[in-house]
Amino acid sequence: MPKISNFTYDEIYIGQTAQYTKPVKASDIVLFAAASGDLNPVHLDAGFAATTPFGEPIAHGMLTGAIISAAIAMELPGPGTIYLSQSLRFRLPVKIGDEICVHLEVTDKKDKRKFVTLDCKAVNQHGKVVASGTAEVMSPTEKLLVNRAELPEIEIGG
Amino acid sequence: MPKISNFTYDEIYIGQTAQYTKPVKASDIVLFAAASGDLNPVHLDAGFAATTPFGEPIAHGMLTGAIISAAIAMELPGPGTIYLSQSLRFRLPVKIGDEICVHLEVTDKKDKRKFVTLDCKAVNQHGKVVASGTAEVMSPTEKLLVNRAELPEIEIGG
Repeated sequence: MPKISNFTYDEIYIGQTAQYTKPVKASDIVLFAAASGDLNPVHLDAGFAATTPFGEPIAHGMLTGAIISAAIAMELPGPGTIYLSQSLRFRLPVKIGDEICVHLEVTDKKDKRKFVTLDCKAVNQHGKVVASGTAEVMSPTEKLLVNRAELPEIEIGG
Repeated sequence: MPKISNFTYDEIYIGQTAQYTKPVKASDIVLFAAASGDLNPVHLDAGFAATTPFGEPIAHGMLTGAIISAAIAMELPGPGTIYLSQSLRFRLPVKIGDEICVHLEVTDKKDKRKFVTLDCKAVNQHGKVVASGTAEVMSPTEKLLVNRAELPEIEIGG
């Protein structure tokens, strides 16, 4: 079974980086709409989206936020991290078929409470920053190697 | 077909409020995991979650962020809003079966660029704030009444 590991506070250093890549599929936009309840047609109705300045469906901005949060939870620090805060600036629209690469960099550590600050940038396949921000987390103190959860099959009807 | 309407910049006033409620189901956590790629077992594996300080599966923090973003997109200002930035502080875990009510309040307007600042609080069914933050959006200038997108059926296997 595939495992996910973490970096403990003591292993984390200022300047440490990690990357996490996620393609954005049409199905991801449908799933995000269902989970959040955001049913705006600009994300889901190609005919409507064609009448907007975007010209085609765009992903919900916070789907990129979700991908940034996954980078933190899966890569740096990984399992056992407590998410304290996140700032996000949405810079460019994300479209179906884009591939988002999240770049994380540790910019600060606070020994007393094991807080770590991460600079976060989500970059598309053209090298453009689509969203950026700063996360503060409480990092794990214990080394973990956990099973990656296996998702049930998700079938999206026509 | 159900419609979604918006508030234009001129209709929006400082002190204006809106609310948006979303129950958090186990299926929402599965859908969010698939859309983001965050497969940490603390969200998805009840057996594993029982071994953590939470005792049971908790929702991804950014799922609450997604629900806050849906409040902005569906209620205030609604369709046509351009999301510029969001800050989030995660305060309490959200569990399966919780009902999250997002409270939005307009705290500032910037006439020149039609920017609106919103105070955002996500409150659970016990009246506790689970996440809070500030959003900045460019509000619509045109009144819109759009069709709420109809999602395809989503079937989650066993």
